[in-house]
Amino acid sequence: MWTLTENSFDPSSQHHKETIFTIGNGYLSTRGAFEEGYPGESRATFVHGVFDDAPVVFTELVNAPDWLSMQVLLNGEKFSLASGEILDYLRELDLRTGLLTRRVRWQSPSGQVATIQFERFASLADQHLLALRCQVWPEFDGQIEIRAALNGHADNQGLAHWNHVTQRQENRDTVGLQTRTRSSGIHLALAMRLPGTNSPEPDYWDTENIPTLRQVFPAHNGQPITLVKFVGIATSRDTDQPLEKALVHAARPESWEAALEAHRQAWEQEWERCEVSIEGDEEAEIALRFSLFQLLIAAPRHDKRVNIGAKTLSGFGYRGHAFWDTEIFMLPVFTYTAPHIARNLLDYRHLTLPAAREKARQAGFEGAWFAWESADTGEEVTPTWVPDFHDKKKLARVWTGDLAIHISADVAYAAWQYWRATGDDAWFTESGAELVLDTAKFFASRAEWQPERGCYAYSDVIGPDEYHDHNDNNAYTNRLAQWNIQTGLQTLNWLEKNQPEKATELAGTLDLTPERLSKWQDVAEKICLHIDPTGLIEQFDGFFALKDVNLADYEPRTKSMHEIFGVEAANQYQVLKQPDVLMVQYLLHDEYTDEQIRVNYDYYTPRTDHTYGSSLGPSIQAIVACLMGDVDEAYEHFIRAARADLRDVRGNAGDGIHAASAGGIWQALVFGFGGLRIHPDGQWETHPRLPKHWKSLTFRFTLRGQQHLVRLENR
Amino acid sequence: MWTLTENSFDPSSQHHKETIFTIGNGYLSTRGAFEEGYPGESRATFVHGVFDDAPVVFTELVNAPDWLSMQVLLNGEKFSLASGEILDYLRELDLRTGLLTRRVRWQSPSGQVATIQFERFASLADQHLLALRCQVWPEFDGQIEIRAALNGHADNQGLAHWNHVTQRQENRDTVGLQTRTRSSGIHLALAMRLPGTNSPEPDYWDTENIPTLRQVFPAHNGQPITLVKFVGIATSRDTDQPLEKALVHAARPESWEAALEAHRQAWEQEWERCEVSIEGDEEAEIALRFSLFQLLIAAPRHDKRVNIGAKTLSGFGYRGHAFWDTEIFMLPVFTYTAPHIARNLLDYRHLTLPAAREKARQAGFEGAWFAWESADTGEEVTPTWVPDFHDKKKLARVWTGDLAIHISADVAYAAWQYWRATGDDAWFTESGAELVLDTAKFFASRAEWQPERGCYAYSDVIGPDEYHDHNDNNAYTNRLAQWNIQTGLQTLNWLEKNQPEKATELAGTLDLTPERLSKWQDVAEKICLHIDPTGLIEQFDGFFALKDVNLADYEPRTKSMHEIFGVEAANQYQVLKQPDVLMVQYLLHDEYTDEQIRVNYDYYTPRTDHTYGSSLGPSIQAIVACLMGDVDEAYEHFIRAARADLRDVRGNAGDGIHAASAGGIWQALVFGFGGLRIHPDGQWETHPRLPKHWKSLTFRFTLRGQQHLVRLENR
Repeated sequence: MWTLTENSFDPSSQHHKETIFTIGNGYLSTRGAFEEGYPGESRATFVHGVFDDAPVVFTELVNAPDWLSMQVLLNGEKFSLASGEILDYLRELDLRTGLLTRRVRWQSPSGQVATIQFERFASLADQHLLALRCQVWPEFDGQIEIRAALNGHADNQGLAHWNHVTQRQENRDTVGLQTRTRSSGIHLALAMRLPGTNSPEPDYWDTENIPTLRQVFPAHNGQPITLVKFVGIATSRDTDQPLEKALVHAARPESWEAALEAHRQAWEQEWERCEVSIEGDEEAEIALRFSLFQLLIAAPRHDKRVNIGAKTLSGFGYRGHAFWDTEIFMLPVFTYTAPHIARNLLDYRHLTLPAAREKARQAGFEGAWFAWESADTGEEVTPTWVPDFHDKKKLARVWTGDLAIHISADVAYAAWQYWRATGDDAWFTESGAELVLDTAKFFASRAEWQPERGCYAYSDVIGPDEYHDHNDNNAYTNRLAQWNIQTGLQTLNWLEKNQPEKATELAGTLDLTPERLSKWQDVAEKICLHIDPTGLIEQFDGFFALKDVNLADYEPRTKSMHEIFGVEAANQYQVLKQPDVLMVQYLLHDEYTDEQIRVNYDYYTPRTDHTYGSSLGPSIQAIVACLMGDVDEAYEHFIRAARADLRDVRGNAGDGIHAASAGGIWQALVFGFGGLRIHPDGQWETHPRLPKHWKSLTFRFTLRGQQHLVRLENR
Repeated sequence: MWTLTENSFDPSSQHHKETIFTIGNGYLSTRGAFEEGYPGESRATFVHGVFDDAPVVFTELVNAPDWLSMQVLLNGEKFSLASGEILDYLRELDLRTGLLTRRVRWQSPSGQVATIQFERFASLADQHLLALRCQVWPEFDGQIEIRAALNGHADNQGLAHWNHVTQRQENRDTVGLQTRTRSSGIHLALAMRLPGTNSPEPDYWDTENIPTLRQVFPAHNGQPITLVKFVGIATSRDTDQPLEKALVHAARPESWEAALEAHRQAWEQEWERCEVSIEGDEEAEIALRFSLFQLLIAAPRHDKRVNIGAKTLSGFGYRGHAFWDTEIFMLPVFTYTAPHIARNLLDYRHLTLPAAREKARQAGFEGAWFAWESADTGEEVTPTWVPDFHDKKKLARVWTGDLAIHISADVAYAAWQYWRATGDDAWFTESGAELVLDTAKFFASRAEWQPERGCYAYSDVIGPDEYHDHNDNNAYTNRLAQWNIQTGLQTLNWLEKNQPEKATELAGTLDLTPERLSKWQDVAEKICLHIDPTGLIEQFDGFFALKDVNLADYEPRTKSMHEIFGVEAANQYQVLKQPDVLMVQYLLHDEYTDEQIRVNYDYYTPRTDHTYGSSLGPSIQAIVACLMGDVDEAYEHFIRAARADLRDVRGNAGDGIHAASAGGIWQALVFGFGGLRIHPDGQWETHPRLPKHWKSLTFRFTLRGQQHLVRLENR
């Protein structure tokens, strides 16, 4: 199954559908809003790296000027799903080609009937090209007017970011618009071309900020008319002359068919690398392909200066900020299917090292402490205060930017994983090693020796489980910090052996003196870790002493336990947003026995808010359940993750794709149900644990430059 | 002098000039932005009562869709002061008629020269009518294109409040646009008509949210072309059919001349009531007339549901919220020159009594506690947190909404003053008495008995001097509270004697039991007031123990002492934003001897931040200086107040008119230099203290329905 289908239009799910019908090409994405508009729509196009200042959230990805705008008038009546009557409706997104089609048979208020079809794609063959085709089959005689515009009046849920710069009619069929963000000063240009020399002469409406070309066609019952709109796009991040560049790209395609064919071929290559199919489970299969599609359209292919936000480029949620979601949830997908993209994303972290160092320095530490929420510069952009859940006159302090130190280890982990999977020694030498070493340096400096306990503590942190803030010795944080420091020492050994010049250079720039390194050794050996004799790990100091509740007592519910308890009170319960201990046992799987995982799995699973806690939780829970052989339970968590966007089970898909969940379900498929294990020497094996109703699972992955196709059958 | 003149255009003072060239008619105001636009402009039209939700400030007056928009193209080249060359420039605001004229002789980049003149007014004869005339004298042959538009894409400094509702071409020369605020759901409609049957047929550009009429005129060297644009405006606050109403008003005028003449006549009546002239001081005279003009264009004539914001309708500052500025600074101007306007403003407070009662109730008190910042409903809309001066990641708590209780007494004072000046017993019986009684009830309930001191305290308040928050027994607050309770008792006596039915009704609804009234008596008699034997009044408990500084040591400076000290530290100094003690001595002048005022004047004057403290301070300082006979010093403060807007001495006139200062300088003129004293029996006298260089001062005021013209000469 490759096609997402919607057979009728329901305004109440408008924003959800806008999200899941998002298209994109790794340079930008456009939500599935209607060309002609609809009341209450959340219309948006986001272009990678185009950020602008915003209150509370510091900076946000800017909703770009609208390239879609197209009005169709049937004998003077404007086509809109908000008026007239919908006689037939079909919207389809072909995931294989990223072509979005909507076909509506519509009767105008005065009774004119026509079938109107819109198709759109963001070219994967030319990232500066967008294409839109409108076809109308009138069931009347008269005239059809089509107005195609570029609209600079875009805003971010009410916040206007653009100033008009210039616009012009380049020639008969082409107009251009250039705008500029108000604070960050990024220029963005769109150029629209309506090819088709046989069409009637267009009028040009030179309305400021909305250059419009208007064409009036004679309508004859049953005879279709067609209008193609090519839009070139460029920003001052790409070139000094964005409008000229946009014009060049708009002018390039010979025809709709030619542009679509080039785009199709690009997608074919894309899918070939990350092929996946599940016989016997259409829902799981489409969810997987949908997740991969969403990650692929958000993945920067030609830009190392950007990351992927927690909601990709598909919605206003989290304002385009990137979190650990990239490294721990999304990056493995790229590392094993499209390593060139994984490298770009890791290079983004390398480029933001200066900001990470500055963040550590300001807090009194050494090394690199990455921003919990990261945007264009890598400075910390986590909001410090947000309106309170219950009283909008009050503010609630957000602590993750101050306390979630594990982000640095997550980055190091992803860099190391990429290197091990790709064998890309050149990149590791040039960039990866520095990421690992400078984060190790941070953790060694952040550790506090506790003489009375004889171990190094990390106090006052937040782990992945954000229901508990201000805790000490978080199991995830401490173990990953230890891993990071150990891996830093290992990295230095490798460099000394294989890249002695780089070893010397980094020892110099990072000031890796023997004293410092022996401190690293000491910290790594003596980090506080609470593991009881059965192997049970306490999530943080004092967790077991918190109040225990039976989550079943709160069912049925439609809110998170965080909201039910309240931000402060949630700290007093053994209820998790997501399971930190299981998370670390998944990431460092080889270092735990099955029994050690089982005891923690049995303890933490019933204490986790699987339904409305973190959307990051279910896929990891599914993987660990697979490791434990609980395939039925694994499937339950997996399918919950798979439905996060397609079925909007959390009710917030309108804010954008749950990108971490999308990456997580691929990991659940490959490392959970497929049981893929990769050994340090590059050998691999599978331990399949397929759900009963699956006939087979097929996936392709890349290891050290080699593609491998795995087909697992249920017997 | 009646004309404000600008002889050259300086982009660096663009926002200041937009403010002072604001026009309006009591229904709306429009800043002096250019018809054709200019980069970085702060273009705005504010319509009374049109508020919408906004972050941090809760609600704000919404920048309405733009009615001004007019583009002039000379042989295809767009007229703009940002390109080409300005050969001659004149902008004039005729305060007598509210007609704003701009005449520019301009050379286009390719060398076309023309003189272009724009005139505009907001009709005082028909508050739903706006008028704009453009005349072009070409010095070339060819064509002149004029595009007149209504533009729904207005925003409030980046915050978009409007959604498009509908637009249509009504007939050949008329188009309409209707929009709706996003949260409050207020509809606003504009209708534009371009009269002139001899003009070329206009094109209609039906661009969504920017309906545009475009006319192309043949240009002949030396032959002027003229285009008139009438705009009707209405909102859903006025009618259920705002667009129909807007169309009606746009259609009404027979000609530019006829509309202007009706408008002129309305202004003539307006000025007749508040005539003022100063022989020998043009700067003072124009400042006075300018202040009166600004108050008059902001004053609601047909709406009791609105107040005047601290920046009138002339800028984004304070978001259209009303403060005590209205009652203490602006209302006396209206009370003594346009009592029907004063009554509307007081009725606004009466209509917001439910919100004031709710505010008191929520804080645990009785009676009516008015919002420190008040908008459409009268609920408290003072921001609770704003970004810190020095670190935008931090927030500073704003305390005035929680602590500035004096607002209730200010409202009562203004109601009482209005009644005494007008003798409007009907109004006082119907509305004023309830204002006085319910605020008295609030103060009696808010007073805390302090057995150790034997007096009633008001602890934890902010007085007018906002450099000091959280203080106890603020001299202004305590004395006004005492006055309010005393006046409440007096009001009840008067009602019982003159309006016994109303007395019974209010005693019932406000629960004015004998016990409660005897408590009032007790509080009024025993409010804590610190007056030392010399008559010196301590501003609040412990003020005299604060650090004393010599303000001269900080000169020259361009910042307030608040900013220099910092919000917290400012509390520790004997430095005032404005003088609370002098303020109360001005308001209750009859109750202090000259000696009692002198001792306080001498103490507090050198401790006040006259230059960058409150813009409310200088005019009051000027009045008290007059009372003390220090005419030179009085003039210095007076002229500082007079320059707040015209010379932008504080550097913030771009945010809007300093309305309190505008009211204050009229009071300084009449009650200070003119020395007008009004006795309780309605008799009056003047004690002129004219500055030496003034030849004469003439002003008109209304007392108990009688107009009085006062002419004072310097001998």
